[in-house]
Amino acid sequence: MTTAPAFEATTYHAPSWEAISEAHARIAPRIHHTPILTSASLDSMAGASFFFKCENLQKTGSFKIRGAANAVLSLSNEQAGHGIVTQSSGNHGAAVACAAASRGVPAYIVMPKNAPKVKIRAIEAYGGKITFCEAKVSSRKETCDRVQAETGAHLVHPYDDDRIIAGQATAAKEFLEETPDLDAIFAPVSGGGLLSGTCLGAKAIRGDIRIIGCEPARADDAYRSLATGTLQSQDSSDTIADGLRASLSPRTFAILRRHVERILLVTEEEIISTARLVWERMKIIIEPSSAVALAPLLKPSVVASLTLPPRPDGRLAKLGVIFSGGNVDLNALPWLP
Amino acid sequence: MTTAPAFEATTYHAPSWEAISEAHARIAPRIHHTPILTSASLDSMAGASFFFKCENLQKTGSFKIRGAANAVLSLSNEQAGHGIVTQSSGNHGAAVACAAASRGVPAYIVMPKNAPKVKIRAIEAYGGKITFCEAKVSSRKETCDRVQAETGAHLVHPYDDDRIIAGQATAAKEFLEETPDLDAIFAPVSGGGLLSGTCLGAKAIRGDIRIIGCEPARADDAYRSLATGTLQSQDSSDTIADGLRASLSPRTFAILRRHVERILLVTEEEIISTARLVWERMKIIIEPSSAVALAPLLKPSVVASLTLPPRPDGRLAKLGVIFSGGNVDLNALPWLP
Repeated sequence: MTTAPAFEATTYHAPSWEAISEAHARIAPRIHHTPILTSASLDSMAGASFFFKCENLQKTGSFKIRGAANAVLSLSNEQAGHGIVTQSSGNHGAAVACAAASRGVPAYIVMPKNAPKVKIRAIEAYGGKITFCEAKVSSRKETCDRVQAETGAHLVHPYDDDRIIAGQATAAKEFLEETPDLDAIFAPVSGGGLLSGTCLGAKAIRGDIRIIGCEPARADDAYRSLATGTLQSQDSSDTIADGLRASLSPRTFAILRRHVERILLVTEEEIISTARLVWERMKIIIEPSSAVALAPLLKPSVVASLTLPPRPDGRLAKLGVIFSGGNVDLNALPWLP
Repeated sequence: MTTAPAFEATTYHAPSWEAISEAHARIAPRIHHTPILTSASLDSMAGASFFFKCENLQKTGSFKIRGAANAVLSLSNEQAGHGIVTQSSGNHGAAVACAAASRGVPAYIVMPKNAPKVKIRAIEAYGGKITFCEAKVSSRKETCDRVQAETGAHLVHPYDDDRIIAGQATAAKEFLEETPDLDAIFAPVSGGGLLSGTCLGAKAIRGDIRIIGCEPARADDAYRSLATGTLQSQDSSDTIADGLRASLSPRTFAILRRHVERILLVTEEEIISTARLVWERMKIIIEPSSAVALAPLLKPSVVASLTLPPRPDGRLAKLGVIFSGGNVDLNALPWLP
């Protein structure tokens, strides 16, 4: 059994550009280079030029395969030999199961009982071995510790892990390499792995780019943590954005404090209506967690509050939005009775 | 009022590569260069390598904007001055309305009473003026003739028009320019505009590429026409593939006879289950008409009957599939009660 070193805020160095570039080279053959899509109708609704990085079209249906593949592929044979263990509300679990399967080692996934059935089935389809726990952060950790002790598997935490953060950073790296003149990037925040990686990957390329996190009001620990300057806990959450129910770790909080401009909150109703709008207008399937990153930008008061500078050539602000995933139960759409 | 010259099979020359290239240059600023997506899970189900040209992600939600924009933008001011008239089950109507709006002229759209509400709303959103008719081919034509006589508008037929066929050919042109080594391309067939264009665009680049049409068994006039060598009519159809209810014209039949290897038929159940599979696995929204082009390839007996050669390097056959559109009513999914 192996464990990651304990986090020390005073001495912590976040993943470097070199680590992110190495991660990208390592995972590139195993992931999709996802398309960046645009939508004239959403642009005209918001008075901005949107660019959507479509990680919903990523392998396993979410960005999570970037970090999971980076972590699993960077292990020695000795480290990986007893398999991989993790806790996940779903997408990270599927990503770890997929990455472990491609390496031929078992994946042990601890997930809350209220995880969507479609995400449970996806993990099973990749051969992952599931242990269910209560839907509280504390129960997830205890169960994960127990499974790890029993199996000797290597822990790949969903976000409190530099290998994961470096992997997730490759989405922003691709985004800015293909669309270099974005004014800002918006990403959803849960445990902070994607948002941390977005900061590191984007700021290394363009130090002046603005990074803004988006979070359900019903799971607002990142908002409260950045507002107070102290890591805030959140032991349970009932947002429909089932990928955003985790809380920041000291590691991700340290990165976000330094690089994230602000966190925008959205209601459950805004999440649902935005998801539906994207399905209708863009013909792509996003899960509610993805809609969280766009929803605030459809409110004129929020867009005005961002004080985006008019561009020199008079063009609209260029806003990058990361759609984090597309795993939904097609028998239970949020807008249908 | 202007009319297209009558079609003469004996002297007909289908649109040339030059006409297709000119069309592409004309419409490129107005359309999306749509992504080509892949899916490891669909590949493993079929034992082939699929490449999906995603015209469901095209502006107006279907490939139809290619032909409509080419026709409308190639008109003189005098020709376009009284507006554009057409008949359509939906997607061509929205495309003509969009193209006419961008030119600042009215669009008169004749559509069957049973067209999906979502397609009616899309035409209205582009400012198109709708006249409803019965759901028979004969009623469509009569109503369209009447509206044309009343308005003096320029007729842009949904497929019996070389400007339309040249525009639709640009999808296959992009497809092969980006994925040059496809073994075959599969496209749905209704009136034959997309399939004719696919033949012309693809064969001009790769004379040996195989082109195969796919059609609902409940609207099998192209299958019967190619089987008998004589243009067969079909005055009504009740397939769920609402974009595939029209019949070939002498013009499209002439092109298909020359270039299409065969037509594959699919049942309504296969259309629905394939559409759902694509939504689930690829996280994109395709309408039932799109699923028609993939459905036969999920049947091992059909794939075997295609006698695709093993590739020299031992790789799987590379099959290109055109997803024609993504306009569906999200309140009435085919697989929900």
